[in-house]
Amino acid sequence: MIRIIAVGKCKEKAMLALINEYQKRLKPFVKTELIEVADEHAPQSLSLAQMEQVKQKEGERILSKLKDSDYVILLDLAGKMIDSVALSEQIASLQTYGNSDIAFVIGGSLGIAPALIQRSDFRWKLSDLTFPHQLVRVLLYEQLYRSFTILHHQPYHK
Amino acid sequence: MIRIIAVGKCKEKAMLALINEYQKRLKPFVKTELIEVADEHAPQSLSLAQMEQVKQKEGERILSKLKDSDYVILLDLAGKMIDSVALSEQIASLQTYGNSDIAFVIGGSLGIAPALIQRSDFRWKLSDLTFPHQLVRVLLYEQLYRSFTILHHQPYHK
Repeated sequence: MIRIIAVGKCKEKAMLALINEYQKRLKPFVKTELIEVADEHAPQSLSLAQMEQVKQKEGERILSKLKDSDYVILLDLAGKMIDSVALSEQIASLQTYGNSDIAFVIGGSLGIAPALIQRSDFRWKLSDLTFPHQLVRVLLYEQLYRSFTILHHQPYHK
Repeated sequence: MIRIIAVGKCKEKAMLALINEYQKRLKPFVKTELIEVADEHAPQSLSLAQMEQVKQKEGERILSKLKDSDYVILLDLAGKMIDSVALSEQIASLQTYGNSDIAFVIGGSLGIAPALIQRSDFRWKLSDLTFPHQLVRVLLYEQLYRSFTILHHQPYHK
């Protein structure tokens, strides 16, 4: 079971459509679930302390969704970059060694709470580029689909 | 004027919707155009020589769309990775020094012809990850929108 835990509701219809499409394609390979936790109101005028508070609150909401058995892969600009094949190998090795519960975590727009970094098992940098958090969900789903086609030696359906 | 020259027609409605959205948002900042050249039929059974032929034909179609005045940024997994701020600075510096015609080139699914690599002024690696070519268009448009909000000190509209 793979769960994707993200902050904020995705409202962009086109992105939702893409996520749905990848969820459907992943079904023969693995069960996935997208869990959205509420985001905090974060106007541009927030002080640094207030920004930390937003991160902390959003972090707590994510932590409450994590199970002890989850192997947590945190999407983090300060993480390690890996390519698509390495990602598929990591998923395969987790499944082989009994970590069948994987949780991918996408933090909120202000960043990631320290407690969440501590709980994570692997910090993954998707790209040097900054993408909107909703688009990151699409990219993650696409990479999961790609990983499972690699693992199952299936052609990638374009 | 920024042109994006890509191989193959994007048929996925949700991706087209996202591209349209970013085109609309870019309008106040810069004129953009998406040019799609025909892709070659490329079944999985192709020999290496045939694959080279596909790349060459697609490459020629792209080259025929490039103007001498174009500063060509080629999306290339063997290129250099830069972050969103560096991309915006590169665009700003090109505009300052009179290279107002920028062409971003996204090759076909089999890769990029050598002639295209030679013509390019900058080879840009978007990510270590492989993404479908149609999704790359969305990512590129999003980064262009992000770049221009950075250059014009405007808030990023999520």
